[in-house]
Amino acid sequence: MSGQMRAALKIAPEKGCTVMDADIPAPVDNEVLIKVIRASVCGTDRHIYFWDEWSQNRIKPPLIFGHEGCGEVVEVGPNVKSIKPGDFVSAETHIPCGFCYQCRTGGQHLCQNLKILGVDTNGMFAQFAKFPETVCWKNPPEMNPDHASILEPFGNAVYTVMETGVSAKEILITGDGPIAAFAVGIAKAVGATKIFVTGLVEPLLEITRKMGATHVINVLEVADPIAYIMDNTAGEGVDAVLEMSGAQQAIDLGFKVVKKLGTFTLFGISASNQISLPMNEGVIFKGVKIIGINGRKMFETWYQGRNLITSGLVDPSPVITHTMPLAEVGKACEMIAERDRIASKITIDPWA
Amino acid sequence: MSGQMRAALKIAPEKGCTVMDADIPAPVDNEVLIKVIRASVCGTDRHIYFWDEWSQNRIKPPLIFGHEGCGEVVEVGPNVKSIKPGDFVSAETHIPCGFCYQCRTGGQHLCQNLKILGVDTNGMFAQFAKFPETVCWKNPPEMNPDHASILEPFGNAVYTVMETGVSAKEILITGDGPIAAFAVGIAKAVGATKIFVTGLVEPLLEITRKMGATHVINVLEVADPIAYIMDNTAGEGVDAVLEMSGAQQAIDLGFKVVKKLGTFTLFGISASNQISLPMNEGVIFKGVKIIGINGRKMFETWYQGRNLITSGLVDPSPVITHTMPLAEVGKACEMIAERDRIASKITIDPWA
Amino acid sequence: MSGQMRAALKIAPEKGCTVMDADIPAPVDNEVLIKVIRASVCGTDRHIYFWDEWSQNRIKPPLIFGHEGCGEVVEVGPNVKSIKPGDFVSAETHIPCGFCYQCRTGGQHLCQNLKILGVDTNGMFAQFAKFPETVCWKNPPEMNPDHASILEPFGNAVYTVMETGVSAKEILITGDGPIAAFAVGIAKAVGATKIFVTGLVEPLLEITRKMGATHVINVLEVADPIAYIMDNTAGEGVDAVLEMSGAQQAIDLGFKVVKKLGTFTLFGISASNQISLPMNEGVIFKGVKIIGINGRKMFETWYQGRNLITSGLVDPSPVITHTMPLAEVGKACEMIAERDRIASKITIDPWA
Amino acid sequence: MSGQMRAALKIAPEKGCTVMDADIPAPVDNEVLIKVIRASVCGTDRHIYFWDEWSQNRIKPPLIFGHEGCGEVVEVGPNVKSIKPGDFVSAETHIPCGFCYQCRTGGQHLCQNLKILGVDTNGMFAQFAKFPETVCWKNPPEMNPDHASILEPFGNAVYTVMETGVSAKEILITGDGPIAAFAVGIAKAVGATKIFVTGLVEPLLEITRKMGATHVINVLEVADPIAYIMDNTAGEGVDAVLEMSGAQQAIDLGFKVVKKLGTFTLFGISASNQISLPMNEGVIFKGVKIIGINGRKMFETWYQGRNLITSGLVDPSPVITHTMPLAEVGKACEMIAERDRIASKITIDPWA
Repeated sequence: MSGQMRAALKIAPEKGCTVMDADIPAPVDNEVLIKVIRASVCGTDRHIYFWDEWSQNRIKPPLIFGHEGCGEVVEVGPNVKSIKPGDFVSAETHIPCGFCYQCRTGGQHLCQNLKILGVDTNGMFAQFAKFPETVCWKNPPEMNPDHASILEPFGNAVYTVMETGVSAKEILITGDGPIAAFAVGIAKAVGATKIFVTGLVEPLLEITRKMGATHVINVLEVADPIAYIMDNTAGEGVDAVLEMSGAQQAIDLGFKVVKKLGTFTLFGISASNQISLPMNEGVIFKGVKIIGINGRKMFETWYQGRNLITSGLVDPSPVITHTMPLAEVGKACEMIAERDRIASKITIDPWA
Repeated sequence: MSGQMRAALKIAPEKGCTVMDADIPAPVDNEVLIKVIRASVCGTDRHIYFWDEWSQNRIKPPLIFGHEGCGEVVEVGPNVKSIKPGDFVSAETHIPCGFCYQCRTGGQHLCQNLKILGVDTNGMFAQFAKFPETVCWKNPPEMNPDHASILEPFGNAVYTVMETGVSAKEILITGDGPIAAFAVGIAKAVGATKIFVTGLVEPLLEITRKMGATHVINVLEVADPIAYIMDNTAGEGVDAVLEMSGAQQAIDLGFKVVKKLGTFTLFGISASNQISLPMNEGVIFKGVKIIGINGRKMFETWYQGRNLITSGLVDPSPVITHTMPLAEVGKACEMIAERDRIASKITIDPWA
Repeated sequence: MSGQMRAALKIAPEKGCTVMDADIPAPVDNEVLIKVIRASVCGTDRHIYFWDEWSQNRIKPPLIFGHEGCGEVVEVGPNVKSIKPGDFVSAETHIPCGFCYQCRTGGQHLCQNLKILGVDTNGMFAQFAKFPETVCWKNPPEMNPDHASILEPFGNAVYTVMETGVSAKEILITGDGPIAAFAVGIAKAVGATKIFVTGLVEPLLEITRKMGATHVINVLEVADPIAYIMDNTAGEGVDAVLEMSGAQQAIDLGFKVVKKLGTFTLFGISASNQISLPMNEGVIFKGVKIIGINGRKMFETWYQGRNLITSGLVDPSPVITHTMPLAEVGKACEMIAERDRIASKITIDPWA
Repeated sequence: MSGQMRAALKIAPEKGCTVMDADIPAPVDNEVLIKVIRASVCGTDRHIYFWDEWSQNRIKPPLIFGHEGCGEVVEVGPNVKSIKPGDFVSAETHIPCGFCYQCRTGGQHLCQNLKILGVDTNGMFAQFAKFPETVCWKNPPEMNPDHASILEPFGNAVYTVMETGVSAKEILITGDGPIAAFAVGIAKAVGATKIFVTGLVEPLLEITRKMGATHVINVLEVADPIAYIMDNTAGEGVDAVLEMSGAQQAIDLGFKVVKKLGTFTLFGISASNQISLPMNEGVIFKGVKIIGINGRKMFETWYQGRNLITSGLVDPSPVITHTMPLAEVGKACEMIAERDRIASKITIDPWA
């Protein structure tokens, strides 16, 4: 297949994005070409759109950005073995080398030579996209495209929840963004018996309620969140904290309320690399286990996420607040950057 | 407290049980005396009632049997530290020595010098019962006594499910007795996405449906259970098998349908000690992990079970089919031995 | 590279092997061609040589057999990325599809579409051999070729020992073959504090002594191995059993002496698929965990094995009893089939 | 037994200790009285001796301090079940309540109501000492008393190493104190294939060499420790870091050299509670697991430690640099506080 398609690109080293015509990519080697049915907008896309410091160091325009999405396979490269035209696929966005130590020991998502779809290669904010077969994930044909589109960030939440181990436990999720909201739904589905959530944005907190949070704390309103959590856990604190905000205050709160021998999972990226930790009182004397989470297990996480959604145990719909045309990718990036945002996860229909 | 109470005893080395007056036991040392509010009937009680070979070798009449139950603490021995009159408690029935290798490494439930309440000591089928503080479990005051009474066998199911790891997985539970039915409810609550159940007794299978089984197989009716399971798992088989029947046929079935690198948990006691296993094809070439389960973790399992019930994530009510007076303990034992039984878990009210 | 080479083939469906000229294979796609420096003889090769029932069902002559080995890369296919001529490599013999459930969840060694080098494809008993890059393992250039040649079966032992977890534990290894002997050395290196070994063949048992066994039991000579083990473990039994013989008697012994809550790892293939297990007394009432082991983790096991050998913590040399020319592959297969064998692991020099 | 004994006490809220006569304690309830054969000096004793801020808040004089030690049982309280006069015991210094959440779920060492021997109760720097049976550990009668005396801090090292998992791995231990030195010996015994150690004090580093360190780094002398470690791990970094110094610089170094998906164990208490961590670059993007370690598992760690020492796999002798009489407890505390200390672990003979 050749020809032109509509795509959203970062064309210059500055804020913004440009929706314009581009060549339909040609799949070579082990690559797969899809007709994109839905893409979705990630915090990373917001960084690229606003051209922050990280983007300036990493992104080389021109680039079609966007890395979450799904579509129908329309063409495959000559070495593709497991995928055929007509398959309905999503993409894992971490493209591993396959041969480094991490790749060969179950850690492909943290490959030493990792490329990221839509960051290091052209991505999903387009009518067509290509990527290697190794990151293809086949969906059931009848799956809701909005759901298929968000499997990647949903997988972040699945990985965080499953690594933490929350079944029959009382937990705190700090953060109110879309991945935190997914995590609430997943934690509920796998049997967390109390789910505290802290956040700042009322409409987003309302979504976590819909996903199953049992105790929602707007930290702008609750005077003493620590006391509230201790009171509601018989003074014991929570078994686990899932940190999904990247905020120093959330981390401080979490180490106050986590139980001795509890688990503290770190997913949220902080604005500053260095974070202060209560090493003695919060970690060592409590015997806490801390787990850094990045990406998703390839592909154990995907199987888990698929099972949870197709069984109906988790419905991600409340988190997907908007679906917008490709022309509005920039607007979507602006919407999720607003202080009083009402948008959680926004999907993009490149054909609207 | 002294005086007389009603109790159900095995008084002679033969089938049967006798409901009669007995002395209210006196708590010494670290013992706790409870007024029994509810007891419940276990397969072990059935063995004692029918005086089978195991009972003949283990039980020394006269004995008040019955080991599952709950009640209000009415008196405590001089060395009791954590329990006081008025507390509403259930009992862990495994009374460990506290000093053997297993006791000192997290395996008290498999203590080398284990005593079993209602088997090696007087038990719960009475208006009062005593046991050491070390096996006391404090319930919330408002807990349903029927639920508090069955926490011990519920704990068997919790331990089996949690050791297996079923979240986001497709599983098979073989067996339709009360612990299998509890396991179904627990597996559902912690996110098993498909739950196959095999059994023989329609009313019991119906209970597993109520508890959340997604695919119920009456092996007397389904022609080819293996094909049925493989067809409903996209030909992959199940991630885990929880064997809760003790039947050779169930074990054979399980090893046919368990996935490569799957888990096979063994809880059901078989009538004959020796069981035949497909060692090469079923275990080694599949890389299967097999876990023998006995008792409950003391007391991790109890915390998990409490959280699941008090949160409402599991409602054990459908499994508790009958509540009967103390005078009918024998009848209850007969009812759960019937081939076409309609009774699953029977609770006993010693004051009715 | 083209031309002729010497190779050992199964050319007809009958006992024996034929050493003859064959074409040097041509690496295509992602394949690597090596000049074989050393191969080694496995029990599987013995089965093929003697043309037993398993071989008759699986092997399609003509076939160059032999799957353990190492050599220098002389040519690579056009899609090879991580290997170049001059590299000194060994081969993982399990060739996975890369796309099935097991392959995508860390279980490539138990791929649903597995091909075995030297069984399903031409193998290592030749002067040259080819295999996909995905199963290449790069060795340090200075590594002893005999050691590089046996990394695959050494990996079986590494995987078994590491999955069991033997550090600071007292263990029993049942079996005296080369993989059992490797396992002894590995268990010693990772801190097993007592290593009991049972076997039948004195020269092989002597090798396990050299590898670090602390208590060697020739079951033809020790009257009561169970009593011996219990006496030497303060009556507690062993923490773990590593079954590497496939014999019913060894399995029976193991379940008698394994501790409550111990681990029982099954590696040895039994002559008959069905094995009898003491399900109640040995598994359930003891809370034993059983782990079926096949192959090696790709490639976690290889990193571990390399580290153990190159650090000098394990010296596999005592297990490698003979090095023979290619012309004597058949004789080597006969030698390891003898009842009173003195050969443990035999390596083959295809250029001698 | 009654009468007087010699003991080292903190008698006033100020620096120093006083060796004087005191009453031999009387064991009641479940307590055990020992004749102390050896005690040993811990960093905590140094804090008490120097009367630092922590001591001022925690210690209530008069107090016999010292918590590490061993001795012969001379008398037992009426409720003691597993210990008898003549037994040779050491003491776990963490005295748990037995009934809190942590105590009932395998975390007694982090009991919510923990008392510490020699801190909250009279301790081991005396000719006799008493403690509850629940913290008694029986030694083989023939065990070297110096070794029996240091089992508690040795257990810290065992717990740290075993929780980390170092077999067949390349690791970094930061710190050169006695527990770090024990950890080196233990890591060696359980198969760490490279052991880097960082420290400041040459005589202490020399001890880690004797214990098995393969790469010793005096950070005052090596210009670029990061480059040194990366160069000696083929640029990959280490699989695990065991932080045993409490120093911010060591933590910073560790997160630079730990591999993606590696493990970082925190044992060293830092002078200031708050420590700065490279949250994004060091923890999240690397997927690192951090484990806070305090105390020892009761009593899994003790079994492991005993096995390692009695098997001869670890000889703790090089770490025990001095044995001194009771009268010199204060001098011992001064010696381990010196900047250029030559003392690592000092044992005390209360009868010399």
